[in-house]
Order: sequence, then structure tokens, then C-alpha cells
Amino acid sequence: MKRVYLDYSATTPTKKEVLDAMLPYFSEVFGNPSSIHGFGREAKKVVNESRATIAGFMNADEKELYFTAGGTESDNWAVKGAAKALKNKGNHIITSKIEHHGILHTCESLEKEGFEVTYLDVDGDGLISLEALEAAIKPETVLISIMFVNNEIGTLQPIKEIGAIAKAHGVLFHTDAVQAFGNFKIDVKDMNIDLMSISSHKIYGPKGIGALYIRKGVRLVNFVDGGAQERKKRAGTENVPSIVGFAKAAEIAYRDFDAHVEKLVALRERLRKGVMETIDYCKYNGHPDQRHPGNAHFAFEFIEGEALLLSLDLVGIAGSSGSACTSGSLDPSHVLMAIGLKHEIAHGSLRLSVGDFTTEEDIDYTIKELKTIVERLRMMSPLYDKVTGGK
Amino acid sequence: MKRVYLDYSATTPTKKEVLDAMLPYFSEVFGNPSSIHGFGREAKKVVNESRATIAGFMNADEKELYFTAGGTESDNWAVKGAAKALKNKGNHIITSKIEHHGILHTCESLEKEGFEVTYLDVDGDGLISLEALEAAIKPETVLISIMFVNNEIGTLQPIKEIGAIAKAHGVLFHTDAVQAFGNFKIDVKDMNIDLMSISSHKIYGPKGIGALYIRKGVRLVNFVDGGAQERKKRAGTENVPSIVGFAKAAEIAYRDFDAHVEKLVALRERLRKGVMETIDYCKYNGHPDQRHPGNAHFAFEFIEGEALLLSLDLVGIAGSSGSACTSGSLDPSHVLMAIGLKHEIAHGSLRLSVGDFTTEEDIDYTIKELKTIVERLRMMSPLYDKVTGGK
Repeated sequence: MKRVYLDYSATTPTKKEVLDAMLPYFSEVFGNPSSIHGFGREAKKVVNESRATIAGFMNADEKELYFTAGGTESDNWAVKGAAKALKNKGNHIITSKIEHHGILHTCESLEKEGFEVTYLDVDGDGLISLEALEAAIKPETVLISIMFVNNEIGTLQPIKEIGAIAKAHGVLFHTDAVQAFGNFKIDVKDMNIDLMSISSHKIYGPKGIGALYIRKGVRLVNFVDGGAQERKKRAGTENVPSIVGFAKAAEIAYRDFDAHVEKLVALRERLRKGVMETIDYCKYNGHPDQRHPGNAHFAFEFIEGEALLLSLDLVGIAGSSGSACTSGSLDPSHVLMAIGLKHEIAHGSLRLSVGDFTTEEDIDYTIKELKTIVERLRMMSPLYDKVTGGK
Repeated sequence: MKRVYLDYSATTPTKKEVLDAMLPYFSEVFGNPSSIHGFGREAKKVVNESRATIAGFMNADEKELYFTAGGTESDNWAVKGAAKALKNKGNHIITSKIEHHGILHTCESLEKEGFEVTYLDVDGDGLISLEALEAAIKPETVLISIMFVNNEIGTLQPIKEIGAIAKAHGVLFHTDAVQAFGNFKIDVKDMNIDLMSISSHKIYGPKGIGALYIRKGVRLVNFVDGGAQERKKRAGTENVPSIVGFAKAAEIAYRDFDAHVEKLVALRERLRKGVMETIDYCKYNGHPDQRHPGNAHFAFEFIEGEALLLSLDLVGIAGSSGSACTSGSLDPSHVLMAIGLKHEIAHGSLRLSVGDFTTEEDIDYTIKELKTIVERLRMMSPLYDKVTGGK
């Protein structure tokens, strides 16, 4: 059976060049970077080289980048660490209603500990309002956490403007850039970003490795306590092969950046046009052009998203109803609620995300199969029957 | 130059069989286990098979095992998660003075939040006193955390007896078994263990993956908040290849268990005898026989440990002055202080840990080189000169 993977926003395959770079660090250069002997020093050297490589792609100093186990840990550390470090200054955090659960559930756990959180609304395209953000800032506000690019609908936030507002008010600015790093040019200095979460497995690197950028001078309470790794800020033996893989993935992403973005946008647009032109009662979600190059997000009326996904799966096409991290839940996505989609439409949502291994053939196959599936599923819908008069 | 790695307690090379098992999960079966399509289901299946494999080796149910990024995260989750879940019951934790920093620094962070921690003494061999443990239990005690095997001096604690005491008093029992899993037979039910931290890279699996055993019915506050992974208890995309590698490493460890332990003990004893018979003013630390099969720990009088390590490194021998996680610190190890070593002896400490790839030739080379180095370093010591009368 033909297999078409259109879920690059959930995770990506590790590229061969990345895996090849990692291989020597499992069994040959295998030392613990904290050990002072030769085996350890070899490992430490490559960890720091990898750190410098990744930091360079966001215009950060290598000493400002700390490795973690992934984007979610980075989000937890940034938000909990900043909140706890600044609790004597204030207890108010501002975020948005469309953040990843790595941020939202972290904020909820802080609310239980006495912090107050403002969840900003977004408009129909998924953008926050800069005026609303500025109006939400109080003397007690210590942190603004707004994601760079949304993981479901792909909307890109005005990061530089948010950074400027945060800076003007003396408030820390964190951004979850898990979906953005490797797909957008990022300059933490120019954008006034104080804290930024990134992840490897979204950019063709291995799973289980991420990083947190912490601007020099910003003090966080540690999240993982223990040994003296990562300059005493994040305990646990460094994951050397994965760190090497992450750096190689970042290197490839920015080396081939223009071609990668151009290719993704072309495929995504082919998909968008094909679907919108051939299928009725379909809404395209997210911002029309301020969005992730590979993200397409549709909502089909008179359709149940899970049935749609399973039908696509039967013909070998892998898509998502929202974020992979929330699958298994029957509630419609918080992101789709926030952009004002009605329950019944939100239930028929489909995220298709293209990537470096997607072909035009994959797209055309998907458009064709999707049309057939949507028609078949709608045949079973009494509501659709009513709207179309049984035609 | 000959290279002899005697730092298996710091980390181990990933075995070929383990790496081979991991390889298909980077680029072929690469789906996100949370995705409901075929790519995701394949990944989820292997994650759960790996979970069952590892759980089986500790007589746990697969639903009681949760993957983490490593032993330190497991320690943080167990201790912080239990303390916070039970804070309405009490605020007292009992641990020992010789725990890994993953526990000690976690306890210190809880002390800052109002928890009270009792740090039990150990005897000269590194054993806690069961009487002292029982006497330390108060109505407010909610958790006992005692490591299975010490990472520096190798001492094995009476885990089953500790478990029985904890159970009799209705207190949760956590054990950091990072150095024990794969080197000892562990039965969480028989030993009354409620929570147990384990790690992959100490048993020839990859770095960056570990697990926490949580006995059914024990409720912890989540540590990493976010997506619904690990049955909503530990957020973050599952590290599929590393999980597969961890399971394979556990499988090998327990498949070849008797031969592994026998080999390590024979090599370790050859090393111990060789060193103790050829070098004067040397103390062998840790319990004489209740200890990790691969661990040897020496303290040489009139020697500075760092100079010793660097000299060994120059002839290709990798050892450790204590835990790899605390290297870079000039203070003598907290473990050696706890067993009553005087500062000046503790400074001359050397942990040599043998493993599956160690040979008798490695041991004999090490004994020979160590003797030469110790003699040379002592020549520079005015104190040694005084003791031996310049002979």
C-alpha cells in the first residue's frame, strides 16, 4: 500500500546525515562528559561544539543554550523556573489560549501554587492582539509566554513586537519555538527573546533532546535538580549522541533553509488549493500567509475528525486532528475553540503537515483520496443530507 | 596508546546488539506514538512492548513503569511528586547522607519550600542503620528515599528490610536503583518498593532515557506537565529509539546476568587484591562484600585525587575520583565524608569500576601503572617523606 506521511508537525524521521553523525557517539566516543579523563573530555568537546552550532542559528552565545530532554521540558523549566525565581517580584504570568499543553498545563500547575495567569484571546486567524497583551501587563507581571508558531493551525505570532513590549515593561519574554526553529530565521537579540524552547525531533533530528535558550543575566530556578551538568543548571548525564544529532539537524535546516521553505510552501499551497477547490463546506484555518511553511489545517463540516483520520489511515495517509500530544481526547481542540470555530466544525478538523520527504505525487494522491472519503462520510450524515437536500 | 576504561559506573558504551535494535526507529518506524495513524501505532506498540520487557525484570506490571529522560529526572519526579502529593498528610522526608545529588539537591529544593528532611548517617562501610531509620519516622513522614547501591563506594543497602519498615509505618519507599538495575535481581513486590528510579546508560543502553516505577495506587504530582503521554503522567514525545534500546539493554543484562556478575566480581577482586597487595597506605572503601559487582573504591594517603586521575589518564586509564556528576568540584565527596574518611585521605580517592568489556590484561596493566604513579606522586609529598623517613 502507498504510504503518505503528512504529519511532520507531530514528528519527523531522523535524516540519514543526522543518524550518521550520531553513530560514533554510542559505542566509540561514549564517555560521560562530566568525567575528567580522555573518554569524558572527547564527549564534552562534542557537546560544546554542538551547543555552539545550535546557538549560532539563533544569534545566541553558546553559554546561553542549555540542553534538555525536549521541548516540553524546556517549556516547564522556562515557565516554572522564571515564575519561582521572580515570585518576590510578582505572581502574574501572561500567555495565550492557543499555547501547547506544555505551557498551558504548566501554567495550570502554577495557578495551584498561587500564581495568576492571563490567557490572551486570539482572533479568527489565531493571532494575539498586541494591544490586549500590553493592557494585560500589571506591576505583578513577571513573564510573558507566547508561542512562536502554533502547532495546530500554523499561525506565526508577531514575535519581535511582543519582545519589544515585554522589554519596554521590564517583563521576561519566553517563546515556545518548537515548531519554528529550523523553519523560520530566528534572532533572539533582535527579537528581544529572553527564553526560548526548541526541540530536535521536529527538524529531522532524534527524539528525546531539546534545549532552552536563557539570555545571559536571566536567572531561573533549576527544574531538574542533581549533578553539576549544564553549568549546574540542568542535572542528568548529557545525551551525547542525541545532542550531536540535534546540532547536525539544525545545521542541515539552516544550510538548506531557502530551498526547504520554498519546497514546503509550494507543496502546502498545492495541497490547500487542491482541497479547497475540490471539496465543499471546508474551511482553511490559521493565518493565510503568516504561518508555518509546511502547515495546512482544514475543517470539514458534517464530518467527524476521528472517522476522517481512520479512513485516511486505511488508504495509507497519515494526518492529525490536532496536536499529536492531545490525541485520545474527545474534546475539540482548545486552539480551534479559541479561533472561534463552532464545536461541530471543529470536530471535523484535519491538520496535514508536509515535510522534506513529501512529493507532489503524495499531495495529489491525498487530495483525491480525501475528496472520496469526505464524500463517503458525508453520505452518512443526516445534517449534510438536510443541507444539500439529499442530492 | 593503550586505553583502559574503568569508569563503567559513570557510563557504559552502548552495546552493538542494543544499537542494532534501535536503528530502525530513527528513520523507518519514526512515528509519534501519540498519533493515531499507522506510523504512530507502530511506534506506540514498540514503546509498550519495551515497557513490558523492562517492567518484567523487576516483577512490576507494565502499567507501573513510566519512561523519563534518565535517572535524575526519575529521582526528581519521585521525591518532588510524592512530597507534593502528600503535603496535606505531612512534610517530613527521610533519606541518607550518601545519596546521589539527584536526591540530595532535590531534597534541598524541597526544604526551601517548607519540607523537613532527615539525612541518615551511614557506618564506615556505607550502610544505614535500620534502627536509626525506624527511629526517624514521625507521624509527618511521607517518604523514605534510600539508594539501592551507592554510586561511589558501591555499598548495597538492606533494601528489603527498609521496604518492610516503610510498609509497617505506612510510609512510601523510593529507591534510586540507577546503579543496581541490571547488576542485582530486583523484585519490587518482595522488597516493598513503591517508587524506583532506573537508567539505561549504566547498563550498556543509550544515554537520555530512564524510567520511574510507580507502584499501582501510589499517586504522584506530575513533574513534567504538558501532553497526555505516559498515561497523562509524564509529558513529552516518547523517545522511541532510546526506549527500544533501554529494553534491549535490560534484556541482555538479565539474560546474561550470572555470567556478567561472575565476570565483574572476578575482575574487581583481581583489581582489589592487586592494588591492596602492591600499594601501601591504601584503604579499600565500601562494604567488603555487600556491594556492586563492578565497583572498587580506594583511598590513597599522601595523594591528591585529581593528580592521580590525570596521571592515570596520561597512560590511558580512565577512573574517577567519585561520581562523574560532581567532578569539577574541589570539595571531597559527601559520601566519603559520611563514611568517616578524613579530608586528607578522602582527597586521594579513586573509583575504578569494571564492566563487560574489561579484560584481565586491563586490570594487570592498571595495577602496574597505578603503583608507579602512586609512588611518583608520593615522592613529591612532604608528609609521605616524613612518615617513611625519606626511604
